[in-house]
Amino acid sequence: MGDPVLNTPVSKADIRYFAGLGISVEHSDEQLEASFNVDALGKYQGDAQVALFPTSTRQVSDILAYCNQHRISVVTQGGNSGVAGGAIAHRGEVILCLRDMNKVRDLDAITGVLVAESGCVLEDLDNYAQTQGYTVPVDLGARKRCMIGGNVSTNAGGLRYLRYGSMHGSVLGLEVVLPNGRILDSLFTLKKDASGYDIKQLFIGAEGTLGVVTAVAISLAPMPGASQLAVLGLQDFSKIQRAYVLARQSLGEIISAFEFWERRCNELVVQYEGYDSPLSSSHEFYVLIETRGACLQHDMEKMDWFLERLQKEGLVENSGVARDKDDMDRTWLFRSQMAHAHSKSGHMHVYDFSLPSKYQYELLLAVKSHLETAGLYGTPGVPVSDVTIFGHIGDDNIHLQVIAKEFGGVVEEAMEPWVYEWVGSHGGSVAAEHGLGAHKGQFLKYSKSPVLIEAMKSIKRLFDPNDIMNPGKHVSRA
Amino acid sequence: MGDPVLNTPVSKADIRYFAGLGISVEHSDEQLEASFNVDALGKYQGDAQVALFPTSTRQVSDILAYCNQHRISVVTQGGNSGVAGGAIAHRGEVILCLRDMNKVRDLDAITGVLVAESGCVLEDLDNYAQTQGYTVPVDLGARKRCMIGGNVSTNAGGLRYLRYGSMHGSVLGLEVVLPNGRILDSLFTLKKDASGYDIKQLFIGAEGTLGVVTAVAISLAPMPGASQLAVLGLQDFSKIQRAYVLARQSLGEIISAFEFWERRCNELVVQYEGYDSPLSSSHEFYVLIETRGACLQHDMEKMDWFLERLQKEGLVENSGVARDKDDMDRTWLFRSQMAHAHSKSGHMHVYDFSLPSKYQYELLLAVKSHLETAGLYGTPGVPVSDVTIFGHIGDDNIHLQVIAKEFGGVVEEAMEPWVYEWVGSHGGSVAAEHGLGAHKGQFLKYSKSPVLIEAMKSIKRLFDPNDIMNPGKHVSRA
Repeated sequence: MGDPVLNTPVSKADIRYFAGLGISVEHSDEQLEASFNVDALGKYQGDAQVALFPTSTRQVSDILAYCNQHRISVVTQGGNSGVAGGAIAHRGEVILCLRDMNKVRDLDAITGVLVAESGCVLEDLDNYAQTQGYTVPVDLGARKRCMIGGNVSTNAGGLRYLRYGSMHGSVLGLEVVLPNGRILDSLFTLKKDASGYDIKQLFIGAEGTLGVVTAVAISLAPMPGASQLAVLGLQDFSKIQRAYVLARQSLGEIISAFEFWERRCNELVVQYEGYDSPLSSSHEFYVLIETRGACLQHDMEKMDWFLERLQKEGLVENSGVARDKDDMDRTWLFRSQMAHAHSKSGHMHVYDFSLPSKYQYELLLAVKSHLETAGLYGTPGVPVSDVTIFGHIGDDNIHLQVIAKEFGGVVEEAMEPWVYEWVGSHGGSVAAEHGLGAHKGQFLKYSKSPVLIEAMKSIKRLFDPNDIMNPGKHVSRA
Repeated sequence: MGDPVLNTPVSKADIRYFAGLGISVEHSDEQLEASFNVDALGKYQGDAQVALFPTSTRQVSDILAYCNQHRISVVTQGGNSGVAGGAIAHRGEVILCLRDMNKVRDLDAITGVLVAESGCVLEDLDNYAQTQGYTVPVDLGARKRCMIGGNVSTNAGGLRYLRYGSMHGSVLGLEVVLPNGRILDSLFTLKKDASGYDIKQLFIGAEGTLGVVTAVAISLAPMPGASQLAVLGLQDFSKIQRAYVLARQSLGEIISAFEFWERRCNELVVQYEGYDSPLSSSHEFYVLIETRGACLQHDMEKMDWFLERLQKEGLVENSGVARDKDDMDRTWLFRSQMAHAHSKSGHMHVYDFSLPSKYQYELLLAVKSHLETAGLYGTPGVPVSDVTIFGHIGDDNIHLQVIAKEFGGVVEEAMEPWVYEWVGSHGGSVAAEHGLGAHKGQFLKYSKSPVLIEAMKSIKRLFDPNDIMNPGKHVSRA
C-alpha cells in the first residue's frame, strides 16, 4: 500500500457490463455533477466519471467481484455529507452509490432492533423509528442528508453520544460485501453474542476501505416520554466543566446532550443563517443541555435542582428553558447549523479532535497564538478571519475551525502537521467523529503507535489485497 | 489451524529462562493444583505443569517472545471462573496467570474512565470505583473471583447489560501483548475516536487466542444515588415478556436489570445454598427488577406506577420490593448463586444462548421433549434430573441447564449438536456471554456463515501465525 496504485480507468465495456447486470449507471465523458464530485464543505474535489446505483446486495456483490477482477477502484458513497473527503473519488474511481438501497428490512417492536439498508437517510429512519416508539441512537447535523451506512462507516458520534454511546456498542450486526464480492453476512439482531471474533467491528469506521456495508442492524433507544432543553450563558470555559459535573449529578440518567460553543460561533450563526440567538444576552460561552426521560414532572424537578445549583455556585450569567417543541427544534437547528455558518463566512479548515477536557480550551489559545506568531491571524488583512471551537462536552470531542480566505496555502502549512502534533502530544486523537478521510491518515502517527498502525495496515491487506476499496485514503496514508 | 499442533513441552531450561527474567514460576513434575487445572464447574480438566506469574507488561512481552520463538503454547488465565473451558490447559500448555498484575493505573474523577491491569478482581474494582462515585458497567455472579482482563477477553455480558450495554461500547482502550511479544498500545481513554480500524475490538471476546490483554481502559457509569429492587411471581412466560414491555414504559431510563428464573431454579437455590426464597409464595416464574436512578423519590413513584400496571393487567401473582440494602444484597446473592446451586445438584451441562424472546420458552419445552423421547428425562432412574432455564430478559440471553449423573456420555450425545442446531435454526447464537471456550467452536457453523467463520480464522492466522495462543480452542475448532 506504500506507493499509490494507478487504478484502471473504467472503460465503455465496463459500463456496458454493469448496465447488462441491470444496474443503473450514470456516466459522463467529462465529470459527474458536483453532488458526486464535491464534498459537503467544497474542499475536496473528485474526478469521477461513472457512478453505479445498485438496488440489492447481490448487485453490489456483482460490482465488486468484477472490479476486483479488473482492478477497478471503487469509492462508496452515501449522502456525501462527510467533511473529510472520504467519499470523494480523487483518482476518478467508480462511485458506488447506495442511495437506492433504502429499505427498512425489519423493526422488532418488542426488542427495538432495526434492520435497514445502508442508503436509508438518517432522519427518515428516525422518523420511522419514532412511529414505533423508538429513536435511532445517533444523531448529527447532517441528518437530512447522511445515510445510515455512512454513519456506520465513519463511526459517527454526534449529538447524543453522551447518552446512547458508541456505534461499537449499538450496532448489533452488519451485512458487508467484501472486495472480492463475497457477502459477509453478519446481520445479527441479538444483543449478547460472544461467539468468535466480532468481525463487524472492523467495518465501523473503516470508511469504505475494507468492503461495502449494505445493511445495518442497530439497537434503537426507546423514544422518551418527555424532553427538555436548556441554554446557558457562561463567562469562561472552566465554568462549563463545572456545570457538566453538576449536570451529571443533578440530572443523572436523563441527560441526553451537553453541547457548548463560544461567542463567535453564536455570532456566525446569527449573521450567516439569520437565526435568532437562543439567549437574548451575549456571553463568552453557551451550553445546550437536553434531557430525555420517562416522566416530564420528574425531569422538570431535576432540571430545577440543576439550575438552582448553577445559580448558587454563580456559574451562569443567564439561562433559558425551551417553552415548547418548536422552541426546542429552533435551538437544535441553531446548534446544527454551526458548521454551515462557519463555511459561509469563509473557507473553513475544520479539525475534529478528541482531547482531554483540561486541554480543550488551551488548544484554542495555542492555535490563535501560533497563527498570530506566523502573521496569519489577529491583525487587519491577514488570511485568517476566525478561529473558533465548539463541541460535545463529556465526549471529549471538540471541533476547531480556522476560517481563511482560501483552502490550503499558508494557513494549512502553518496548521499542519503542527496542530496534529500538538493534539497527539496532549493525549488526543487526530480524528474523533469525522474520520480520517482523504487527508488525515498521514497524521495518525501523532496519536497511534507504530505497532497499532501496522496492525491496521495488515487488516487492510487481509481484506483488500488488491487495494481497490477507497485506495490512498484512511490508514493507507499512515 | 485444521490439525491439532503438538506443542513443545516446557523444559527445565525454559523454566530456568523464565526464572532468570525475574518472573515468578510455579511448576510440578506431575500437575499443578486444581485451582489452575480444573474449571469453575469441574467439567474441564487441564494438564498444566508450569504457571508463570508476570508482574508487568514487559514480562508478559518477554514470555510471549520466547514462547513464540520456541513454539511453546500458552493459555492465559485470570480468575479461572469461566465455564466454557477457555482458560484450561488441556494439552499441558504453559499457564500465563495475570493475578499479580492487579494495579489500578488511573481513575479520572471527572470523566469516569478507569485504567486497570487485567488481574484486578471485578468486585475489588467496583468497590474502588464506588469510592469515586462510579460503578463498573459490567457485573456477574463470579465477581469475587473473575478479573477484568477475563471479562474483556470473554466479552462478558452479565446482569446489567440492559442498562450499561456491551463491552464493545464501554471499553475505550486495551493494552495487548501480541503473540510475537510486541506490545499493542491501544490503551486510549477518550470516548470518541474515529481514526482507523478499531483493532482493540478484536480482542474483546477473543478468549486469549490472539494475544494477552494486560490492561483495560473502561468508561465507568456514575454510581446512582438511588436503587430499588423488586421481585415478581408470575404464572407463565408470556407474562414475563409483557411485564418487560411495561417495565420499559413505566421505569424508562432507570431500569438496570430484568432477570428471570423458573420455579425449579428457585427451589435448587433454597435447597442447595440454604437461602430463603425472595418471595414466600411459590410461582412458576420469578422476575428480579432493579432500578438505578438519581432520585429515590422519583424512582419509587415510577416503581409504584409499574407495579400498579402489573396488577391492573393481572400479570403477577405476588410481588415484593426490597426493604433496604441488606434485603437487596440478599436477593442479588440468591440470583447470583443460581448456577452454583445447579452444579451442586448434579453434573451441570450448561448452555448459554442468545435467542429471540419468542423462542426462549419453546427451547425449554423442545429440550425436555427431546430428552424424554431419548429416554433420558422424565421417568424415574433416568440420567437427567432437571432441565431448567433462567436468564436476562431484554438481552435475548438465556441459560439452559441440563443436570445429569455425569458429564458427557449419553446426555451430551443426545444434546449435541442437536441443541446448537435448534438454536441456530431459530435465529440464535451458540454462545451469548460465556464464550466458545474449549468445546463450542465446532458448533459455530450453526449460527455463523462460512464467509464469516473464514474471516475469523484469517484473523487468527494474521495475529498468531504459529498458533501458540490457546491452541485448539475458540474459532480454531470451527
